[in-house]
Amino acid sequence: MLALRVEKRGLAVKDTDLPERGDEALVRVLLSGICNTDLEIARGYAGFKGTIGHEFVGIVEDAADKAWIGQRVVGEINAGCGECALCRAGDPRHCAKRTVLGILGRDGAHAEFLKLPVSNLLAVPDAIVDEHAVFAEPLAAACGIMERAAVTRDKKVAVIGDGKLGLLCAQALALTGADTLLVGKHAEKLRIAARRGIETATTKTVAKRKNQFDVVVEASGSASAFQLALDLLRPRGVLVLKSTFEGTTEINAARLVVDEISVVGSRCGRFPPALDLLRTGAIDVDSLISEEHPLRSGVLAMERAGKKGILKVFLRP
Amino acid sequence: MLALRVEKRGLAVKDTDLPERGDEALVRVLLSGICNTDLEIARGYAGFKGTIGHEFVGIVEDAADKAWIGQRVVGEINAGCGECALCRAGDPRHCAKRTVLGILGRDGAHAEFLKLPVSNLLAVPDAIVDEHAVFAEPLAAACGIMERAAVTRDKKVAVIGDGKLGLLCAQALALTGADTLLVGKHAEKLRIAARRGIETATTKTVAKRKNQFDVVVEASGSASAFQLALDLLRPRGVLVLKSTFEGTTEINAARLVVDEISVVGSRCGRFPPALDLLRTGAIDVDSLISEEHPLRSGVLAMERAGKKGILKVFLRP
Repeated sequence: MLALRVEKRGLAVKDTDLPERGDEALVRVLLSGICNTDLEIARGYAGFKGTIGHEFVGIVEDAADKAWIGQRVVGEINAGCGECALCRAGDPRHCAKRTVLGILGRDGAHAEFLKLPVSNLLAVPDAIVDEHAVFAEPLAAACGIMERAAVTRDKKVAVIGDGKLGLLCAQALALTGADTLLVGKHAEKLRIAARRGIETATTKTVAKRKNQFDVVVEASGSASAFQLALDLLRPRGVLVLKSTFEGTTEINAARLVVDEISVVGSRCGRFPPALDLLRTGAIDVDSLISEEHPLRSGVLAMERAGKKGILKVFLRP
Repeated sequence: MLALRVEKRGLAVKDTDLPERGDEALVRVLLSGICNTDLEIARGYAGFKGTIGHEFVGIVEDAADKAWIGQRVVGEINAGCGECALCRAGDPRHCAKRTVLGILGRDGAHAEFLKLPVSNLLAVPDAIVDEHAVFAEPLAAACGIMERAAVTRDKKVAVIGDGKLGLLCAQALALTGADTLLVGKHAEKLRIAARRGIETATTKTVAKRKNQFDVVVEASGSASAFQLALDLLRPRGVLVLKSTFEGTTEINAARLVVDEISVVGSRCGRFPPALDLLRTGAIDVDSLISEEHPLRSGVLAMERAGKKGILKVFLRP
């Protein structure tokens, strides 16, 4: 089968063996989405070698439990050991022995087939088309912010970054009723949020709103956004970090102490709330779709996904 | 009167005018303590120019409310505007217009006299000697950790830094019943904690205890401790920053995201719990006292306070 792989010699679409499902499910991928994390991995982030991709919708081809066969599914990306305290509590996201689809020790979704434990799969309601279902993973990640920071109607929230992740975060946060501002650099991307009634600002115009926000979400993937986020936060405010990128960020630790800021990392979220939002059309994902390429053009698609102005790029096996 | 001042040309003991108390209280300083923040300010941190010092015990010499005169007091260091929402809620620590004793817009405690609003003063119980009362401010800061992170009996906590602040933090945290470890570099300082039944480790021996701690407190004032703290924390753990120092720290933001770490700044605490702990002898502060110098030798005392192996240095006007 074809798979988009990061190997020693770089990124390439390769003809590889079909995954042996073992006691997991074999899923035929219908559509996968390119995430900025894929681009970072191709640059060396996380040291992953193998098939990349972790946003997908597919059909179960085979599984020990035959009831799953033929089911259209999405899948949570962290596969735990099943035995540690975290896994037993039903949350393998921080299992020390976990593998992560297309990121850590497990081949990913930019391929004709993938395998995942059945416990990671969620049936996709008929009302959700493939092109929307692919957003379950990044939208779950956006909703995951609410697991890490108190976002309620009385809060003022800013999201920095008008890329695809920032646009999902802003929309998910706004649905809580919190007063939400999206800060970005691209008028056409900011308009996507504005059409959903979300206030927008550029990094320039927002500079005068210092110390006003209870929660600021950094979703731009840029180290320089850290300073802007601190400027926007009120004392004892919460800075949520969503982007994973290679490299280090310089912080003024004294500033965190004096203003008693909390910096909170946020990675994966639960899929069920995200599927609910997709089913009811509460989130505009159509505006986030830029291009679709055949899987065999995966290298070109990755290049395109890294271009300015491009939002979500799909790969179709 | 004499005062230890940071001025354009550097640190010096100067003969200055007595503070005009206005509607505040005039306090005759009995004893003041040198904090690492004083050393950082002398190096340029916070850009403060004026009389430094914010740890003191003194006698009220004059105040509008005559009942205070003659009272032995300590004083909370943040003086708010009295009108903003924070001040009206009784917590001026983050008032945007605040002054801070010896740190921000207000002359400090390494002087014969200081002034503070009466609302900042707390009477010192007779059972607390001057040499202990001076610790009210740093001990309150140590207790302030519990306002910012959940520290309970079921938690594993590590404090990095066996200086005077780290030793106070470790003792305050251990009193919650949490399993507390102090990590340092100096056997004689670690012994102070060990005598109170607190487990200790060196930065070397602790390296094998990765991902074990729910809460790690950084009290070493060293940028390099940040990485060690991250290594010790379990996923979704909390890193409390206590040290204020000039300069920046390089962090791997992706690490915070992937492990969903919270980094929480913690500055000032409330004085009443600290006075209670000092009154009941629950905290060993005697072992933290290294030297006492007359105020006129303030510059020498500051040098001494910066030497390896020296803990708290007092100044006596």
